[in-house]
Amino acid sequence: MPKISADTLSARRREILDDARHCFATYGYEGATVRRLEAATGKSRGAIFHHFGDKETLFLTLAKQDAQRMAETVARHGLVEVMRDMLAAPEDYDFLLTRLEITRLIKTDPSFAARWKEHQEILDQAIKQRLQQGIHYGWMRVDLDVDALHTYLEVCMDGIIARLASGDDPNQLQQVLDLVESSLRRSPGVKPPSSLR
Amino acid sequence: MPKISADTLSARRREILDDARHCFATYGYEGATVRRLEAATGKSRGAIFHHFGDKETLFLTLAKQDAQRMAETVARHGLVEVMRDMLAAPEDYDFLLTRLEITRLIKTDPSFAARWKEHQEILDQAIKQRLQQGIHYGWMRVDLDVDALHTYLEVCMDGIIARLASGDDPNQLQQVLDLVESSLRRSPGVKPPSSLR
Repeated sequence: MPKISADTLSARRREILDDARHCFATYGYEGATVRRLEAATGKSRGAIFHHFGDKETLFLTLAKQDAQRMAETVARHGLVEVMRDMLAAPEDYDFLLTRLEITRLIKTDPSFAARWKEHQEILDQAIKQRLQQGIHYGWMRVDLDVDALHTYLEVCMDGIIARLASGDDPNQLQQVLDLVESSLRRSPGVKPPSSLR
Repeated sequence: MPKISADTLSARRREILDDARHCFATYGYEGATVRRLEAATGKSRGAIFHHFGDKETLFLTLAKQDAQRMAETVARHGLVEVMRDMLAAPEDYDFLLTRLEITRLIKTDPSFAARWKEHQEILDQAIKQRLQQGIHYGWMRVDLDVDALHTYLEVCMDGIIARLASGDDPNQLQQVLDLVESSLRRSPGVKPPSSLR
């Protein structure tokens, strides 16, 4: 068997990830059967799982890609900006709908829950840092602890995903995000300095 | 065949509904197969669908029961109080988790979407009336229109359901609801008069 270069391997992994992402976004976590993943990637189950072990690992790898992408936006502009991006280009965030589907799995499967948490760590850290920055610079309300503000943002994000997925009007949801943003501020007038926006 | 009294028929319908509710809450909308509905109710598919036509109708009947129950609380105390009830007794609201699962169906199946909307009408109306009452009596913020406030509340409710289902700490979510409630008020000090709480 000829040797395969690291570049070729990495390109193959990327191809599988892109096609699998589309498949999960279309059919959901449960609905993206191994047969459908084969059809979507044009690869055999053997080839897919050679790279990613199993369906759960493939899925968590994709979830981590998203967590990384979102963490970058969070660091610069906060989680509300991630939600604004969702409204502007919902099709880029179709995969996130699986978040709602896997809540049942997170509650009933402790091993899945632990792996999920680990793969979301980078996003959790970014959200926490941004909130602490907001408190430090004085634009964030301080009557609630950081964990409560963090949970509020996650509640809003899961809700936005659900409403967007149900076909709610993005313009209406835009107004909701303005409300979410202002409800986090210490007082209506106080905004992050432009260098941190 | 002996005649069956209206009371007996109504009792049978209630029994099927209670058992089916538990089955949907446990397995989800897709996961509650006809076979599992038979096992949960102890009735044949023929008997179940004699009363409720099909699985979709059975499901929507249950969703409407919930909408009615929630509408009563909304009329007296608002939708945030419904969410507080969820945190106090999550097991009574397990069925609501199906809301997240059916978003995909609402987006992709126009006939299901129309029936869902119709079955939720009573709750939608109650939320709208409560918001208008809040504006009339002056405790609700008026810088956003009623539809935006309505959408905000729905975003928060779907988010609370998702976080609660993932096993988030109800105490933490309690603080989030305080934040949601205060963000709807015209100013932090203004509350509904006690007769309307």
